[in-house]
Amino acid sequence: MLAQPTHFTAGAHGRWQITAIEPVIGGTLPAADRLAVGPPGRGAWQLSGIGSNLRYTTADERDALQPVSAPLDRGEALHGVLIPISKSTAWWALAQDERRAIYARSGHFSIGKEYLPEVARKLYHCRDLGGEFDFLTWFEFAPEHQGAFDKLLKRLRETEEWRHVAREVEVRLVRATDGEAPKPGE
Amino acid sequence: MLAQPTHFTAGAHGRWQITAIEPVIGGTLPAADRLAVGPPGRGAWQLSGIGSNLRYTTADERDALQPVSAPLDRGEALHGVLIPISKSTAWWALAQDERRAIYARSGHFSIGKEYLPEVARKLYHCRDLGGEFDFLTWFEFAPEHQGAFDKLLKRLRETEEWRHVAREVEVRLVRATDGEAPKPGE
Repeated sequence: MLAQPTHFTAGAHGRWQITAIEPVIGGTLPAADRLAVGPPGRGAWQLSGIGSNLRYTTADERDALQPVSAPLDRGEALHGVLIPISKSTAWWALAQDERRAIYARSGHFSIGKEYLPEVARKLYHCRDLGGEFDFLTWFEFAPEHQGAFDKLLKRLRETEEWRHVAREVEVRLVRATDGEAPKPGE
Repeated sequence: MLAQPTHFTAGAHGRWQITAIEPVIGGTLPAADRLAVGPPGRGAWQLSGIGSNLRYTTADERDALQPVSAPLDRGEALHGVLIPISKSTAWWALAQDERRAIYARSGHFSIGKEYLPEVARKLYHCRDLGGEFDFLTWFEFAPEHQGAFDKLLKRLRETEEWRHVAREVEVRLVRATDGEAPKPGE
């Protein structure tokens, strides 16, 4: 019902300064200085996704997450990370219970929960939009939680679920300090 | 990973003749003579969706469906029905296991299976595309199975799951007999 995509535009403008772009699995993304998050724009590249309904999370898991989750845009969360991910064709050919079983065996929910509320996160879906990635995962945290965030990534990448990841790029960001005003709507 | 949407364009052209457009829940769609299925076109209205991964079906259910399912475009399947559907905001706010439980209690899988292989069906997703519907459901059957198809619809609409349907329009079609060639790519 009239979902609005969020656009991540890498180029010369935006509230986030890009400090590194690392290909983790498969090809990388072009270099750029800044990342804008919000309405569509022009730049070296643009990825778009939609905050959609829960696909694997159960009601019990949702209820356990809610009290410890953190919102985006906290004043102290000066570090951001955008990790676009695609899963394999074989993954998408699995039935719902087969994908959920791998997600559960991999501890995706419980590992993620350990890093709350320090690491705020949001998941955008883009597989049905026909883009080059299936998901855009977004994280924000204070600089002192950088080590915890790196540990979270390492643990997830060691799971059975990650064997089904076909492409993954890590885009590291810091909140720009030059006082550039956000673009309208950003 | 580069999904290609299918477009349903109602207007003056197309392989299917529109015999009725009935609003079931909420507002209707504009009248038109023909429906083309395939690449984008121009017409009174156009709905687009993507054949995507299974969202509720388990591996056991998928394996039970496969041997009895029918392909689209059988020579005898001269009747078609397009039913665009949206579910409520409350439905989409439910966790995955809550939606699956309603789907299972409603017998969605078992009711549908009873009408195979007579009624061929395909589900297109469009919620993440930002259109006015969440799904486009498509059915094809031979004229002598019209009664069975009507029974299938009636039974599904009596289920708990259907209380979460916010909008539903029924577009009845017959394969056009005037020999109009399908448009390129149709």
